Amino acid sequence: MLEEIGKHAKQAARYLNVLGSTQKNQGLYGAADALMEASDSIIAANERDLDNARKKGMHSGLLDRLMLNPSRVEAMAEGLKAVAALEDPVGEVLSMKPRPNGLLIGQKRVPIGVIGMIYEARPNVTADAFGLCFKAGNAVILKGGSDALWSNKAIVKAIQTGLSSAGLPSKAVQLIEDTSRETAKELMRMNQYVDVLIPRGGAGLIRSVVENSTVPVIETGTGNCHIFVDESADFSMALDIIFNAKTQRIGVCNACESLVVHRKIAGEFLPLLKKKLDEKQVEVRADEEACAIVPEFSSASEEDWGREYLDYILSLKLVDSVEEAIYHINRYNTRHSEAIITSTYANAQKFLNEIDAAVVYVNASTRFTDGFEFGFGAEIGISTQKLHARGPMGLKELTATKYIVYGDGQVRP
Amino acid sequence: MLEEIGKHAKQAARYLNVLGSTQKNQGLYGAADALMEASDSIIAANERDLDNARKKGMHSGLLDRLMLNPSRVEAMAEGLKAVAALEDPVGEVLSMKPRPNGLLIGQKRVPIGVIGMIYEARPNVTADAFGLCFKAGNAVILKGGSDALWSNKAIVKAIQTGLSSAGLPSKAVQLIEDTSRETAKELMRMNQYVDVLIPRGGAGLIRSVVENSTVPVIETGTGNCHIFVDESADFSMALDIIFNAKTQRIGVCNACESLVVHRKIAGEFLPLLKKKLDEKQVEVRADEEACAIVPEFSSASEEDWGREYLDYILSLKLVDSVEEAIYHINRYNTRHSEAIITSTYANAQKFLNEIDAAVVYVNASTRFTDGFEFGFGAEIGISTQKLHARGPMGLKELTATKYIVYGDGQVRP
Repeated sequence: MLEEIGKHAKQAARYLNVLGSTQKNQGLYGAADALMEASDSIIAANERDLDNARKKGMHSGLLDRLMLNPSRVEAMAEGLKAVAALEDPVGEVLSMKPRPNGLLIGQKRVPIGVIGMIYEARPNVTADAFGLCFKAGNAVILKGGSDALWSNKAIVKAIQTGLSSAGLPSKAVQLIEDTSRETAKELMRMNQYVDVLIPRGGAGLIRSVVENSTVPVIETGTGNCHIFVDESADFSMALDIIFNAKTQRIGVCNACESLVVHRKIAGEFLPLLKKKLDEKQVEVRADEEACAIVPEFSSASEEDWGREYLDYILSLKLVDSVEEAIYHINRYNTRHSEAIITSTYANAQKFLNEIDAAVVYVNASTRFTDGFEFGFGAEIGISTQKLHARGPMGLKELTATKYIVYGDGQVRP
Repeated sequence: MLEEIGKHAKQAARYLNVLGSTQKNQGLYGAADALMEASDSIIAANERDLDNARKKGMHSGLLDRLMLNPSRVEAMAEGLKAVAALEDPVGEVLSMKPRPNGLLIGQKRVPIGVIGMIYEARPNVTADAFGLCFKAGNAVILKGGSDALWSNKAIVKAIQTGLSSAGLPSKAVQLIEDTSRETAKELMRMNQYVDVLIPRGGAGLIRSVVENSTVPVIETGTGNCHIFVDESADFSMALDIIFNAKTQRIGVCNACESLVVHRKIAGEFLPLLKKKLDEKQVEVRADEEACAIVPEFSSASEEDWGREYLDYILSLKLVDSVEEAIYHINRYNTRHSEAIITSTYANAQKFLNEIDAAVVYVNASTRFTDGFEFGFGAEIGISTQKLHARGPMGLKELTATKYIVYGDGQVRP
């Protein structure tokens, strides 16, 4: 069955490969309209998922993420229209130049082909992922979580109807309805049909895909994001940024999980920090010396330096220098987003140069690591690996390149 | 032991990450000088490999690839100096732009980190791979074939001596001396230390790396390259290009392995082709209809369409249209290099748009798919995958990016 899905995806991808933006946008509008028309049946299907989830005792936070209502379905449809409005990256030719022998060589942006997405609970990812992959000219094979199966089936069915009504291949989006791990593993080895896999979800899911996949993977990752408060930091700026990065939204990968503070300012800064973080009852797990300054801090263990809490908790370590801060961060971070708060030029530049992460900030919140905030107009995920794409991924990151060469009879001497 | 190599590589990579071009070039010059000084001992070590190879009955072509002499050692040293002369891609900041909130966001080119190379016979790859990886700021872990073990040990020792004498970390290049498959597999799962693996060698080696590696792989590939001779082709140009692409060098991945010829010109063109290819005794394995035109052609089986002969052999198929040619090529090619010979504008554009390959040519030989011919000044391999790099890979393809963000206190609303 998976083989059939792979074949259909490959066929659809060949078709999409040569579509212009106008046609692709018609497909996105068709899909958006079809989602609106199918709103009732999507919500009914979602009710079935919610029932199952309640029976299994899913907690309220996850239930809310799973839940669809008319306005959420409308948001999905509006999302597809927003993607239609984005500039199409496909077809642009980069740095075309003549060689001395007259060959004209350029690099053309092309669709990747077939993209496999493996993701967990939220059903809106289904429409989002389709929209971005489709606009970049790719067919997509979706493998959502079992909790959202009925919702995903209804959403994909609506999108396929919309594509067909726009005269486009409905197999540009397909859902794998078998949510077993074995099927997921089979998908991870379909090198013949799938060009790239993008897992989105918790650390366990991503590790499983990295370990089992022979298809190339774009790792979207967990974020153990640090903020280093340098000796010369503006305290008020530091407090605002830390408060924002930790508490503006706690369950996200670009939230701050760990503070590194210059020892020289600890005595003055930590009590102010305590006061600010108390506004949201943030627990601070600090090293011994910091705990001596603010006895209300709890005591950090070695394990805390590597934790992504996704909660109102922060670890805190004192250091003697920007060098020690960089060493600590590079040792424990997950290569996601790291920030320095400083007014010292050399330390800002040093931090930008030497921190190994997808995004490195001077005097700003780590929460900006996001495709919308970066101006891409969309986001398929945040890559924490180094190849192909690093950081927020928009439409451009869903394309590949090929060299095109114009000759007039050249042969190699 | 591999764990130690990984740790040392990671340490060296951190050091290289912040080196300027001047220092890196001093390292390359130091390594080049050290190779020249160690020339005698490298040749003596190579003699030991050659002895073993002769005892094992290695055939003369492979023996020649394995053999080092003073001029080949000098060529390795000159190769390193040539890499020193290339522009350093590291540190360039791409498309830095302000966001409406004042954040200034740019994408900076940075080293990848630690690169693992798994390759076969030729010992000159050892020096070449080091040079390119090092210039792009990466540490490299080399795993060469057992046939060249003593040569590789002597070459790496010399390079390490040269690096040390230039005051640079010798562990920027390390050789895995255990050439067993188990050790290779262990390297393929060292995600903690190795950022990317680049296999170079035959189809079997590359398949093994793709199937066993959890570390991201850049697949360098086999080439079943096609030339399509369109109805409107200039015959003389077509014959020159085919002759060049097939016979200028037969054992390489960008050599032409298969011809696709428009049926309308077959009667006139195939006899001319036969005559031209006879100059080098090229065997043509053709479909039934072509064999009817030139009875000296041998008969192609289905299997021939997918073969990379690396020999004086070509497969040949007749088609009715550019569409059929594109369909056939996309079905059987290895996504490497494909060419059309045509004088029809629309067919040239269609072929460029619709062929799925790393490099697509109009009216030129496939043999140009090469880092030097593309003007990169160097080449680490030719990628036939779609992510990160596609086609010839030079220094730029040995780098990654990270976003750097300059703020003045921004928090996310």
